[in-house]
Amino acid sequence: MLICIINPNTTKKMTDRIEMVANKVASNGTSIVATNPKNGPESIEGYYDEVFCIPGILEEVFSNKEADAYIIGCFDDTGLDAVRTITNKPVLGIGDSSYHIASCLAGTFSVITTLDASVPILKNNLLKRGFDRICVNVSSVNIPVLDLDNEDSNASSSIEKEIEKSINNYKAEAIVLGCAGMADFAQKLEEKFSIPVIEGVSASIVLAEGLIRMKKNTSKLGGYSYPNPKKYSGIYKPFSLE
Amino acid sequence: MLICIINPNTTKKMTDRIEMVANKVASNGTSIVATNPKNGPESIEGYYDEVFCIPGILEEVFSNKEADAYIIGCFDDTGLDAVRTITNKPVLGIGDSSYHIASCLAGTFSVITTLDASVPILKNNLLKRGFDRICVNVSSVNIPVLDLDNEDSNASSSIEKEIEKSINNYKAEAIVLGCAGMADFAQKLEEKFSIPVIEGVSASIVLAEGLIRMKKNTSKLGGYSYPNPKKYSGIYKPFSLE
Amino acid sequence: MLICIINPNTTKKMTDRIEMVANKVASNGTSIVATNPKNGPESIEGYYDEVFCIPGILEEVFSNKEADAYIIGCFDDTGLDAVRTITNKPVLGIGDSSYHIASCLAGTFSVITTLDASVPILKNNLLKRGFDRICVNVSSVNIPVLDLDNEDSNASSSIEKEIEKSINNYKAEAIVLGCAGMADFAQKLEEKFSIPVIEGVSASIVLAEGLIRMKKNTSKLGGYSYPNPKKYSGIYKPFSLE
Amino acid sequence: MLICIINPNTTKKMTDRIEMVANKVASNGTSIVATNPKNGPESIEGYYDEVFCIPGILEEVFSNKEADAYIIGCFDDTGLDAVRTITNKPVLGIGDSSYHIASCLAGTFSVITTLDASVPILKNNLLKRGFDRICVNVSSVNIPVLDLDNEDSNASSSIEKEIEKSINNYKAEAIVLGCAGMADFAQKLEEKFSIPVIEGVSASIVLAEGLIRMKKNTSKLGGYSYPNPKKYSGIYKPFSLE
Amino acid sequence: MLICIINPNTTKKMTDRIEMVANKVASNGTSIVATNPKNGPESIEGYYDEVFCIPGILEEVFSNKEADAYIIGCFDDTGLDAVRTITNKPVLGIGDSSYHIASCLAGTFSVITTLDASVPILKNNLLKRGFDRICVNVSSVNIPVLDLDNEDSNASSSIEKEIEKSINNYKAEAIVLGCAGMADFAQKLEEKFSIPVIEGVSASIVLAEGLIRMKKNTSKLGGYSYPNPKKYSGIYKPFSLE
Amino acid sequence: MLICIINPNTTKKMTDRIEMVANKVASNGTSIVATNPKNGPESIEGYYDEVFCIPGILEEVFSNKEADAYIIGCFDDTGLDAVRTITNKPVLGIGDSSYHIASCLAGTFSVITTLDASVPILKNNLLKRGFDRICVNVSSVNIPVLDLDNEDSNASSSIEKEIEKSINNYKAEAIVLGCAGMADFAQKLEEKFSIPVIEGVSASIVLAEGLIRMKKNTSKLGGYSYPNPKKYSGIYKPFSLE
Repeated sequence: MLICIINPNTTKKMTDRIEMVANKVASNGTSIVATNPKNGPESIEGYYDEVFCIPGILEEVFSNKEADAYIIGCFDDTGLDAVRTITNKPVLGIGDSSYHIASCLAGTFSVITTLDASVPILKNNLLKRGFDRICVNVSSVNIPVLDLDNEDSNASSSIEKEIEKSINNYKAEAIVLGCAGMADFAQKLEEKFSIPVIEGVSASIVLAEGLIRMKKNTSKLGGYSYPNPKKYSGIYKPFSLE
Repeated sequence: MLICIINPNTTKKMTDRIEMVANKVASNGTSIVATNPKNGPESIEGYYDEVFCIPGILEEVFSNKEADAYIIGCFDDTGLDAVRTITNKPVLGIGDSSYHIASCLAGTFSVITTLDASVPILKNNLLKRGFDRICVNVSSVNIPVLDLDNEDSNASSSIEKEIEKSINNYKAEAIVLGCAGMADFAQKLEEKFSIPVIEGVSASIVLAEGLIRMKKNTSKLGGYSYPNPKKYSGIYKPFSLE
Repeated sequence: MLICIINPNTTKKMTDRIEMVANKVASNGTSIVATNPKNGPESIEGYYDEVFCIPGILEEVFSNKEADAYIIGCFDDTGLDAVRTITNKPVLGIGDSSYHIASCLAGTFSVITTLDASVPILKNNLLKRGFDRICVNVSSVNIPVLDLDNEDSNASSSIEKEIEKSINNYKAEAIVLGCAGMADFAQKLEEKFSIPVIEGVSASIVLAEGLIRMKKNTSKLGGYSYPNPKKYSGIYKPFSLE
Repeated sequence: MLICIINPNTTKKMTDRIEMVANKVASNGTSIVATNPKNGPESIEGYYDEVFCIPGILEEVFSNKEADAYIIGCFDDTGLDAVRTITNKPVLGIGDSSYHIASCLAGTFSVITTLDASVPILKNNLLKRGFDRICVNVSSVNIPVLDLDNEDSNASSSIEKEIEKSINNYKAEAIVLGCAGMADFAQKLEEKFSIPVIEGVSASIVLAEGLIRMKKNTSKLGGYSYPNPKKYSGIYKPFSLE
Repeated sequence: MLICIINPNTTKKMTDRIEMVANKVASNGTSIVATNPKNGPESIEGYYDEVFCIPGILEEVFSNKEADAYIIGCFDDTGLDAVRTITNKPVLGIGDSSYHIASCLAGTFSVITTLDASVPILKNNLLKRGFDRICVNVSSVNIPVLDLDNEDSNASSSIEKEIEKSINNYKAEAIVLGCAGMADFAQKLEEKFSIPVIEGVSASIVLAEGLIRMKKNTSKLGGYSYPNPKKYSGIYKPFSLE
Repeated sequence: MLICIINPNTTKKMTDRIEMVANKVASNGTSIVATNPKNGPESIEGYYDEVFCIPGILEEVFSNKEADAYIIGCFDDTGLDAVRTITNKPVLGIGDSSYHIASCLAGTFSVITTLDASVPILKNNLLKRGFDRICVNVSSVNIPVLDLDNEDSNASSSIEKEIEKSINNYKAEAIVLGCAGMADFAQKLEEKFSIPVIEGVSASIVLAEGLIRMKKNTSKLGGYSYPNPKKYSGIYKPFSLE
């Protein structure tokens, strides 16, 4: 089976890392294609950046028609609903996938993300799918996405502090790392705190494999029905489905 | 005061009609600029079309810096959150504005929109802002946006049937017409059913005027803080706020 | 247009101040009538005081039939539902109006009120209209209403402390001042904290103007239908609608 | 023990019937005082009538200081919060009491009341105390309160129809009769439908007895703390707690 | 009337204490039978222990057919739903009963229980019946059930600390003691903090008496309908209702 | 990897069918052990039957220590919470797993189960994990579990009718078959209605495989911490973890 994972930003280094994490958890027989848009921002930090990633995500989906499932490699699940309208293959976001996996392992969980500007986006996603009932807290470490692997950012110790707060103050029973760029920290944190620490790339890969193995398709009723064909103008003309 | 209302699709006829409705309700001393993106779809029907409207909406906001408030003239409130990050002026969506006005006039309301594919979008918006508690139903008449003023579409009688159901089965005390293209029907329906019938263009104009008169700005804390400056590539390079 | 704003308590000084704030935000061409009941308590602090204000509020509405809209000038929205049953003109409460305005400007808000005894009243109002989803906290400064402008009460610095907590602990993106008597503090606090600070008198005036301009009426279906005519006894006989 | 049950309207016949029902369920050793205000409406049908009952209810509480508990004999629980501020004795509403009893007997329940105008009032009460989670429907038979025992009103068969709908369409497992005037129908309906049918007078009497036996007081923290002493003017001067 | 109260664990001392508390609040004319299963754990601390109590609880119900109502004497309301399917007599849990009583006395309440492992169980129960809306906090003192009356456990002072937090941080207006073993502390704490402190044994006795006096039965529609007769194997064969 | 799937009832034929369905979806390299308790009911229909399955489920878990994950093969997720306390391996229920898979494929879903008595159980499970937000309806076909494959039961056409209602009246975008015994119908229904139809055995197998591949453990904080060692009496003595 072939899974296409799309890093919505233009930072190739991040795409490579996502690919590596994906390959590590994927089954034998699963091929991973990791890609990213040519146009758009170098990272996603809030509502504005999201806008300029989604056309590129859709382009990557159109260019990878042979894939058996698609994954959006941003924790905001940027463009997830839109992608689900143009294919009947399973489509997953790494945020949503993390919440499902956390829900299978613990009674409650906390999400720790990079910036305050992302917190409302994640909260809306949680609310929409009912995960607000078991997600007890969403907090941020206030470190820009691209500084996460910069040693000076002290990302690791900032995340640790938030985990402690999540466990002690909010009674979190599992931790979700709310940024693709935090994937590398998961295992060490899990060992340190003896608590499930979920990163979304692995979560989405195993869910995608599962949906493919079940031969399941995205519903084409309601919100995810195929777009009506219509005229598109200007630079978006090629996206017309007429 | 100057209010900039942006029709997110490329159909000039719809922009003109929105402008007309806006001018009808605007106070003396309020100037309306109605505009629409050059690039993108001719109408918005579901998640896919939305994607290709938002860059153009943002462009129109950047091009209309002198406005005192911005209105997004699509009932899905497409791009509302993104626009709020690039200005501290008030920014309103015609969907959200309708819900506020309905909430001031009645204990409950129903939303009647064009297509099934839009229903989940509206439901998510309602949920996010708490209006799901007083919105008792969202239904569609299954008529494409651009056919609404086509007499053969029987839009008027289809909407009437949904209003009857809303009142009798769901105990709606007000009706929100869930599409900018339905604005013309409002008055006649209000008279026929003796129930408040709200269309969003008027609702957003009076709210925008009010916010301007109160000298209020969009919050720059949390989700609506200004975007971090960063590198944008390709066709979206001009949108970089570096 | 003529807007009648009713201060539900008997303190004329407060009525005057409400009138002044109202006139400051009102459009040219809007006349404000500010009034208060002759019977009842000098301030509203909790469920008990409310009871004895509502007959007087209704009396003022009956005595100001020529008004185009009515505003209840108490943050508890005392008697709002009852007033809506006796007129088809728009009727607003300054609490509810503040929540609508805050919701247009920010993702979340906090309410800061005078006394603990008012907190549950406000929480019920928020819950009823769905604002509990975006209102992240309701707190009190523990200062009686009539002491707010007494310098010894330190109202200003107490409110500032609550604003800091609202922003830091609850991630409030806007502040609602939960008492008509706090209106004077709004502008200074807004400047100090660079966050929208909403006071309800202005909020309700601009909403009332908007509803009048839209020519909208209160729904007469369901809870706000006109009262059934019936026999009233004793001192309330004049209120019978027989 | 002495329980004071206050019929909030001025219809003595209804007070008598409430007294009769109360006495039927009361334990040996419980004395019932049933009373009603001298001033106010002959029945409560919606928000307007409620206003003019509450001062009288409070008067009756002040006049019956020796009671060990108070019951408000209207299904809207009119004035319940206000009464709880002036005494530390237990205070119950017949609506709220019915919901508690129904919750002890069944997984879900429906409420059947007299008029559409009362439905939003009951829904707000249910929401406030969390009963909206198990109350699956609130409907009305559209019969004025004082016509319930008029044979021409067909109250009985109208209620039966609503019970059938509640069971079949809404999966109600118990029925709450949402009006003190419906108490007489309870037993017959219970037998006919083999489903618990709860009327509020009995429900509140047994709860009041229980609270008294437990020697429990109404909390004086938060919303139910004693009113602040203050100046009252005009006809309400006697209600000042100065 | 005869009330059968079942302590779900095998600790006879606890059964005796429950019986004593029950007798103290019961009316003249009420007989209490307190009993406990022969098989199972000596205390209930979390999901695992619960499993092995419920067959024994059901056995006790079958063995006490003459009772007019049943009470499950564990704060987790272990087996409450199952017991309700095998009898049409009223069946109460001491947890659920406490929430009802607290709701009659205060606007909000907190629950203080023994161990962290019980917190999610109580939260689920609260959620299921809507009490999560007024329960502002569930916390634990981290003392095993059987150590509560061990002086070294400092149970009393630990509970006091949690009550302070509940009042100050969570605005609790009443306290529910979340363990049958805490019943003895209630009165002293109530006096110390001038706040209603509810223990579940008394709460359930007065509710049971009330339901019996009202001649009410558990609904036999939906979830509490009698079990379908069917084959049971092995040690559970006697429980078959064939 | 080795997955142990436990059919909680004693009907071997059902265990065999579960095993067959499980093997069909399992990856190469996954071994399935399907088992069922020796003691207990032949099917689970409501709260009563559940009680007598859970000790046996726990026994099977203890007897299959070498498994890498456990699945509870009953749609009620009977005993799921208890099993999660005795192992740190992933534990899944087929109901919960179905909801996760449906949530990945569609905006909303309906559950169709066998009997009315199971509906409240499923609703509680959905509520607890937040799935009530996207589950638009739970209905039953009123056919006992063991009659599902009896041709006379017309199970297939009854389910079809419920699917039509789910799509048309409730806007379900996916269907969850709410009983292990319905697994055989899934594929045919999916084809007939062009809508995802999820059965829980496959759903849980792919989730279990995914969790194992991610090397994830059940959280041992909060509700799923290991049971405290304590004395167990009588027939349950072997279950003591002392």
